[in-house]
Amino acid sequence: MEINKNYLNLEASYLFSTIAKKVNEYSEKNPDKNIIRLGIGDVTLPLCGAVVDAMKTATEEMGVQETFRGYGPEQGYDFLKSAIKDYYKSHSVDLESDEIFISDGAKSDLGNILDILGTNNTVMVQNPVYPVYVDTNIMAGRKIVYSDCNEENGFLSMPSEDVKADIIYLCSPNNPTGAVYNREQLSEWVNYAIKNNALILFDAAYECFISDETLPRSIYEIEGAKKCAIEFCSLSKTAGFTGTRCGYTVVPDSLIYDGVSLNKLWLRRQTTKFNGVPYIVQKGAAAVFTPQGQKEIAENIGYYKENAKIIMKALDELGIWYTGGANSPYIWLKCPDNMKSWEFFDYLLNNMQIVGTPGVGFGTNGEGYFRLTSFGSREKTIEAMDRLLNYSLAVK
Amino acid sequence: MEINKNYLNLEASYLFSTIAKKVNEYSEKNPDKNIIRLGIGDVTLPLCGAVVDAMKTATEEMGVQETFRGYGPEQGYDFLKSAIKDYYKSHSVDLESDEIFISDGAKSDLGNILDILGTNNTVMVQNPVYPVYVDTNIMAGRKIVYSDCNEENGFLSMPSEDVKADIIYLCSPNNPTGAVYNREQLSEWVNYAIKNNALILFDAAYECFISDETLPRSIYEIEGAKKCAIEFCSLSKTAGFTGTRCGYTVVPDSLIYDGVSLNKLWLRRQTTKFNGVPYIVQKGAAAVFTPQGQKEIAENIGYYKENAKIIMKALDELGIWYTGGANSPYIWLKCPDNMKSWEFFDYLLNNMQIVGTPGVGFGTNGEGYFRLTSFGSREKTIEAMDRLLNYSLAVK
Repeated sequence: MEINKNYLNLEASYLFSTIAKKVNEYSEKNPDKNIIRLGIGDVTLPLCGAVVDAMKTATEEMGVQETFRGYGPEQGYDFLKSAIKDYYKSHSVDLESDEIFISDGAKSDLGNILDILGTNNTVMVQNPVYPVYVDTNIMAGRKIVYSDCNEENGFLSMPSEDVKADIIYLCSPNNPTGAVYNREQLSEWVNYAIKNNALILFDAAYECFISDETLPRSIYEIEGAKKCAIEFCSLSKTAGFTGTRCGYTVVPDSLIYDGVSLNKLWLRRQTTKFNGVPYIVQKGAAAVFTPQGQKEIAENIGYYKENAKIIMKALDELGIWYTGGANSPYIWLKCPDNMKSWEFFDYLLNNMQIVGTPGVGFGTNGEGYFRLTSFGSREKTIEAMDRLLNYSLAVK
Repeated sequence: MEINKNYLNLEASYLFSTIAKKVNEYSEKNPDKNIIRLGIGDVTLPLCGAVVDAMKTATEEMGVQETFRGYGPEQGYDFLKSAIKDYYKSHSVDLESDEIFISDGAKSDLGNILDILGTNNTVMVQNPVYPVYVDTNIMAGRKIVYSDCNEENGFLSMPSEDVKADIIYLCSPNNPTGAVYNREQLSEWVNYAIKNNALILFDAAYECFISDETLPRSIYEIEGAKKCAIEFCSLSKTAGFTGTRCGYTVVPDSLIYDGVSLNKLWLRRQTTKFNGVPYIVQKGAAAVFTPQGQKEIAENIGYYKENAKIIMKALDELGIWYTGGANSPYIWLKCPDNMKSWEFFDYLLNNMQIVGTPGVGFGTNGEGYFRLTSFGSREKTIEAMDRLLNYSLAVK
């Protein structure tokens, strides 16, 4: 029996384990210091009341003969697909129910979608990048090319004849940089994909953080996208579902490659290798899209967005360059005084007891940059920025 | 962009759609007839009280800041892995916590495990077979060979030098035949796998239906199995989790192929392409393994097993050959009077209004056989067997 030898080409990531090790060492040497973590990519506010109520009711239904549910449709219940369809309609995107697939999260489907795509395709990812895009393709042995994001292009790379690929990953609002494509930029990508018979895998996991109404929340707001793009979305950040696990993937009926419908291939993949998301969780997810649910999650998203503003204000005062924050939970800043990413990590930890994420951990173009997130508590975010301002002004 | 062309080699399965079509047609022509479905592979009893209570409590925790849980470990929470470890210990199998991976069901992991195995491996499945084993391997382009199960070997095929493979699927108690391997038979498979450097994928989804204490519930009860087998299990049939979604996969630390640990490869696959099972569901699953949970699920399993006995008694009275039933929710019978599978389907539907599953739908060796299940209600199971006995005796 042979293993899948492509796995031997994976590089171990030491990013988060190195961070943990450094923080632990500092903590042991300085037990009296109060460390504030702004590196966190996980939500911290609890599930909203509408979701909790819906899941409790669904749990009770499952305990009663008459309302018990066994196997559901692998692609999700109609009540949830219908709610998501209406949500898309609210930002002017018309979808058919059979184009929506309920998933246990964007990360699962971003990996699993590759099952239906040939291994000979060349894949384009941006640099810096969410590492899952890279690793899932190394596992399948695909060739990977990089599209450079940097300060010059605002960390939003554009199509180029020099970097050609069959499968193109875009994430907007971006993880890790928080940068968001506008309509014109996304149109360029869509046109480029159609011209080159390429497929865009569009990660919209952070769409709910977009406040600027001129920015697209879905790639399907762009003409032609239904002919060249699959969209992945999640309730993880939208509604605090990181531990509850529900997302959705949109595979338009009009996506045809090699004369074959990707929608039909994905349906076949899901009915063969997946058994659907728990009924209870789908009921909780549906509650997110009710008026009460939307009101409650808007409060939570607003809380994180206010944290982002507090971080942005401090960076503005210090004259530090950054992207993100305005329409994203992530703030991607340029390390001051030409510090390298890990140098700035140590500087923040040792002098201000603030923990963030070194940008170089997301790719070579992240060197010299640093990611802060708005998922902490209000109190700690304020305290961290006070420390940053006071220390920075003191040393100047 | 090229699709994965292996998908074009998949054959569409019309088994369950043809059954539905035939039943609908009959129903429309005979609106007054009361049809009893014994083809169902889904559970019908609701979740037990211990599970419902645990999930309600967990849902409440998720709504409160102090007890909210975000991302959990991809491989599952320790509280659940520890409960499963103890469960294995109760039938004399010692596992390490890191050998247990919590999944959203056996079907998902049976498909996803193939990610870590090379595509050049030859795969052995039995005939008849649960179709997922076949389709997931066609999707990856692996060569598939068949091991014949038939009345002569009690639908339990044994290793043969004529049918060699690198990956061997075994399902015991079997779906669809209900046949169960004994220790000596499983030992032969384990020895064969070790000798041939093969890997056994052991589907134990129906282990909880085993009453005969001499029969193994886990392949790890067999010496050497930790060196050649991955085991898949599920709470779907054990505790009615078909719509709640939780299972577990055991990948022993001592599984080494090409000098590489399969446990480490699977951990890498799961951390990259999966984000764990909902916290709420894991709490429900853990409740299954408490004394109260075990008592309650034993009652439900006992209910289904009593249904199986009622079916077996009727078949015995009619002198119809069958396997399964005693240690399985499935009864696999030989169609009387040399009827073919679909002929017997029509015969049962038209004369007795009973619906079952034609054996030929699971492979060529299923021709002339038929699957009944014990997942119906007591009342309907009794009524169906009364109809079968009365009609059969009347025509004789």
